[in-house]
Amino acid sequence: MKFSLTTLGVSSASPTTDRYPSAHILNICGRLLLIDCGEGCQMLMKRHGISLMKTGRIFLSHVHGDHVFGIFGLMSTLSMSGRTEPLHIYAPETFRGILDFFRGQFLERECYPIIFHPLTSGEPETVWEDNGITVTAFPLLHRVPTYGYLFREREPELNVRKEAVSALSLSVEEILALKEGRDVRREDGTVLETQSLTYRPYEPRSFAYCSDTAVFDALPGIVRGVDLLYHEATFGDDCADKAAEMFHSTARQAGETALKAGAGKLVIGHFSSRYKDPSVLLAQTREVFPQTEIGWEGKEFEVPLKKNEK
Amino acid sequence: MKFSLTTLGVSSASPTTDRYPSAHILNICGRLLLIDCGEGCQMLMKRHGISLMKTGRIFLSHVHGDHVFGIFGLMSTLSMSGRTEPLHIYAPETFRGILDFFRGQFLERECYPIIFHPLTSGEPETVWEDNGITVTAFPLLHRVPTYGYLFREREPELNVRKEAVSALSLSVEEILALKEGRDVRREDGTVLETQSLTYRPYEPRSFAYCSDTAVFDALPGIVRGVDLLYHEATFGDDCADKAAEMFHSTARQAGETALKAGAGKLVIGHFSSRYKDPSVLLAQTREVFPQTEIGWEGKEFEVPLKKNEK
Repeated sequence: MKFSLTTLGVSSASPTTDRYPSAHILNICGRLLLIDCGEGCQMLMKRHGISLMKTGRIFLSHVHGDHVFGIFGLMSTLSMSGRTEPLHIYAPETFRGILDFFRGQFLERECYPIIFHPLTSGEPETVWEDNGITVTAFPLLHRVPTYGYLFREREPELNVRKEAVSALSLSVEEILALKEGRDVRREDGTVLETQSLTYRPYEPRSFAYCSDTAVFDALPGIVRGVDLLYHEATFGDDCADKAAEMFHSTARQAGETALKAGAGKLVIGHFSSRYKDPSVLLAQTREVFPQTEIGWEGKEFEVPLKKNEK
Repeated sequence: MKFSLTTLGVSSASPTTDRYPSAHILNICGRLLLIDCGEGCQMLMKRHGISLMKTGRIFLSHVHGDHVFGIFGLMSTLSMSGRTEPLHIYAPETFRGILDFFRGQFLERECYPIIFHPLTSGEPETVWEDNGITVTAFPLLHRVPTYGYLFREREPELNVRKEAVSALSLSVEEILALKEGRDVRREDGTVLETQSLTYRPYEPRSFAYCSDTAVFDALPGIVRGVDLLYHEATFGDDCADKAAEMFHSTARQAGETALKAGAGKLVIGHFSSRYKDPSVLLAQTREVFPQTEIGWEGKEFEVPLKKNEK
């Protein structure tokens, strides 16, 4: 029941000696979801023991080099490794031409299906769901079309309280109805109420990824209540003007968005190379939102399972 | 008077946890020449203290991803760093479309001139020379158009022996003539012979880069007598068939080429990921050519200055 984000690349456009461009792995119960794929991503994954072959979906925020230059090498390696499973790529429509060009020029043998899911909507939209999670893409505010992603576990199935099963001699049909949230009226007129006889075994967890973006009013509402929020913090207070000019955020602004959204925890990344030690950025964010942590290569941020009382 | 090769990336197509794709820096008396530019090259350069800004020329062997995917990030970083010096790129003509596509899609601000030198010849040809070195590109034998590069110091100017200057009371004109290799006949009939009165202060050094290539007869002749030879050694004896099929070389074949060429020293690289420890490849090469060393990230191979007796 793992739900964790591993930050791999946390530099902004220019990498440093110890920070690679944007790349993150979200592990939701064994689903390995790659979020942005900056140069060197495949090497970072190998270094930190993350399986390239088991990574099924890549979510790209936008078509700036520091978020996509790693995908070419990664896809080549998958091809040479004999992958046959499909690879799903979610990205702004602007990535289509680049993907087509790369496939034509570089993939000698394309042995696995590459399925491109272009993002074009100006509104949040569900782009993928399976029996356990839903993924929503939503537009951010940057110099080129850019999307954030919201990953939510689905509501788990209701459990019927064990003591009720024996005390009320529940039949299989009654249990199934209660699990589906339906009250049951027995022939003797008594009503078995789902609300009192069942419980949710745990609360669904959520994570939102916001990079790169300027501040905008709608964002806190879109990511409201997420357990874990990743938000770019390219600049500090000293470069607030530059942040605005470049459609980026300051560390403080990242904290303000987390606060307004009521996020459980905030992770900041995408640091400009001018900050050799990004702890100065962390301090500025924490002035606004104390539950902030800093991303670095290989750091894993777990969202623990929130079990409910039976 | 430095002349050294630093191997940065020594993996073949699929990188490993400790080997990046092809990238090498040749430092000839302060000229920083980048040879191939696999993914992660700019990060390796930063990690090993090699200045991106001072790197003026990039020599690409061929358009396979593991030799070129790093150039996009490197060029982007140069652009954001405010470079104004030209960047010269030598590559097979097949790279032109990729370079143009990249510039159109990714370089937001192109503040430095990018000068592309396409290689098309089927014969060795000088592609660059300055007052100290000449660079010759020559075709290799691979699945796509591929070139090796031969870097040679020019012959240094002759020095006139100090004892001759005073003993023969040489005039400035006589010294200049002797330095240019011309004998001088004095009015009294005596001849000042350049051969006995001058010496070369040092022997010009040379380096050749051969990756990727199958064995072919002409190669040893092209790189004859180089002080330092880099040759790919993708496979070991166990995969000789695969090497031939893929137009690659085995470690042993790399040694055989070095032997036939009369190279001073051989460095092998471009190791397949199947060899966790490439020392097995080194052993096979050394059976043929003992003066072989193995390339690894950040390893510098110096060619010492060979001073002549005065």
